[in-house]
Amino acid sequence: MTDIPTFQDIQLAHKRIAAHIHRTPVLTSTGINAITGAEIFFKCENFQKVGAFKYRGATNAVLSLAENEASKGVATHSSGNHAAALALAARNRGIRSYVVMPRTAPRPKIEAVRHYGGEITFCEPTLQSREETLKAIVEKTGAYIVHPYDNFWVISGQGTAVLELLEQSPALDVVMAPVGGGGLLSGTALAAKSVNPSLKVIGCEPALADDACRSFKSGNLIPSVSPKTIADGLLTSLSERTFTIIRDRVDDILTVSEESIVRAMFLVWQRMKIIIEPSSAVPVAALLDNQGLFAGKQVGIILSGGNVDLFHLPFQEG
Amino acid sequence: MTDIPTFQDIQLAHKRIAAHIHRTPVLTSTGINAITGAEIFFKCENFQKVGAFKYRGATNAVLSLAENEASKGVATHSSGNHAAALALAARNRGIRSYVVMPRTAPRPKIEAVRHYGGEITFCEPTLQSREETLKAIVEKTGAYIVHPYDNFWVISGQGTAVLELLEQSPALDVVMAPVGGGGLLSGTALAAKSVNPSLKVIGCEPALADDACRSFKSGNLIPSVSPKTIADGLLTSLSERTFTIIRDRVDDILTVSEESIVRAMFLVWQRMKIIIEPSSAVPVAALLDNQGLFAGKQVGIILSGGNVDLFHLPFQEG
Repeated sequence: MTDIPTFQDIQLAHKRIAAHIHRTPVLTSTGINAITGAEIFFKCENFQKVGAFKYRGATNAVLSLAENEASKGVATHSSGNHAAALALAARNRGIRSYVVMPRTAPRPKIEAVRHYGGEITFCEPTLQSREETLKAIVEKTGAYIVHPYDNFWVISGQGTAVLELLEQSPALDVVMAPVGGGGLLSGTALAAKSVNPSLKVIGCEPALADDACRSFKSGNLIPSVSPKTIADGLLTSLSERTFTIIRDRVDDILTVSEESIVRAMFLVWQRMKIIIEPSSAVPVAALLDNQGLFAGKQVGIILSGGNVDLFHLPFQEG
Repeated sequence: MTDIPTFQDIQLAHKRIAAHIHRTPVLTSTGINAITGAEIFFKCENFQKVGAFKYRGATNAVLSLAENEASKGVATHSSGNHAAALALAARNRGIRSYVVMPRTAPRPKIEAVRHYGGEITFCEPTLQSREETLKAIVEKTGAYIVHPYDNFWVISGQGTAVLELLEQSPALDVVMAPVGGGGLLSGTALAAKSVNPSLKVIGCEPALADDACRSFKSGNLIPSVSPKTIADGLLTSLSERTFTIIRDRVDDILTVSEESIVRAMFLVWQRMKIIIEPSSAVPVAALLDNQGLFAGKQVGIILSGGNVDLFHLPFQEG
């Protein structure tokens, strides 16, 4: 299926996954509002199961499979939150999950996948090795591949976060979400523009991994070339499908520096007492760097995840 | 006033401060429930204004003063969250606040008090110097002293956290709170036992600062002698008043090691993606160390605060 989900698909996804996910809270911060001059509503997907919004899309995909599709398990290649999310979603359905991870994946990520019962196969840290290894596993097991973002059900599932946010904070003027492969941003744009066509949807991206911004501005899909950013959830490139959705429905894409990301992450930790990963700090950084755009507005920010290595934090005393 | 607050005093305190404080959320964690075998409800006072429950008591005290008592400002000596809480509560009433802090207080704490408009006088890091400096300020300014815990209104205000918790999670079997000077624990016990006399109230204390536990077990107030614990909010000793309340109404006091505190703090950060300070981790540690006592029970834990120095965390990779 290479289709684009409709609003109804996202509503059905929410019904399908509602009993399995956390309806995450929306938090506000008087202090950060005062700094930015905006009124910000933080949708805390860092509190989602497995610590990231990815659990929405993975759960929707696993629950959407027909019995004969699901029976041989699911498979993916990912070094990040999608792998853990798929492993837990599969375990909850009682099916197996096969995860291809690069040998170089951080230990906490490997442990998370194992913790949720994912069966890991290590590969070389190249896209070619990932894809070949995944292909071999699927040939052997017959498992169903659930791509981290170029997947109809995954995009539909990611769109459910903003559905909830708009129920929890109905008067938003703007919604901001990070963009890597575009699953979250495209699901967000599909859902948000259906609820309220005048709601602005802004994608936020590290300047050092700005393929979505360059694709959006040029109108042509430009893949990422060796991106290198602290926002490790945003290293992937858009697919044709996520690019099409974003091009047609997103209002703008802003990019931010690595320094801005770390500063925004620190601000949220310090003022809000919540743990967000660098990818989540990207929209916060975009807001802090572009205050003129958001002053006086009600802004929703999807805090995409909270999985960080607590032994190696990027904060520098200054 | 050296009285002991009644339940009505705590209810009135809640009415008085409700518009000024955050009604903090109660979070749960499937992962920590699985580890402990209990069903835990975390009352997130780390999300309270100034990052700690102390804002409840300070606000109640400042708002309870008559106009002539309040007009010359308020004063306290504190190196911790009470100082910031009193400064903000005073600013919100439009009165001055004078805070005596030891020269050695950590920079983030000094900055917090300044940030909220408190006027700081530094003293030597001894109780004698603190008290003499405070006395001199009060003689000069006529400010009203608001003690961090040995104060009728402060105790009443701290009791409002568990009032909310019992509205949010009405079926609790046990409530756990840390104990330092005893303001939070005595307010908690007064409120909790009034709502439900069969609800167990457990105080939790670092073994290296176990004056409350020793006082409780012996029946006599035993002050702390040079306590040294990472839980920097729990260094103070009980007062006669907080001791009396705790002796008569608390069911038990459990002590925990420094290692247990750091382990519990790490677990909450990692699994719940929220930032708690070491003092908040003390009840979590007591639960983890005494699982037999709590298995199958609904346990409320008051997470007292979230003010930590993010540049100097105690976590060790192992």
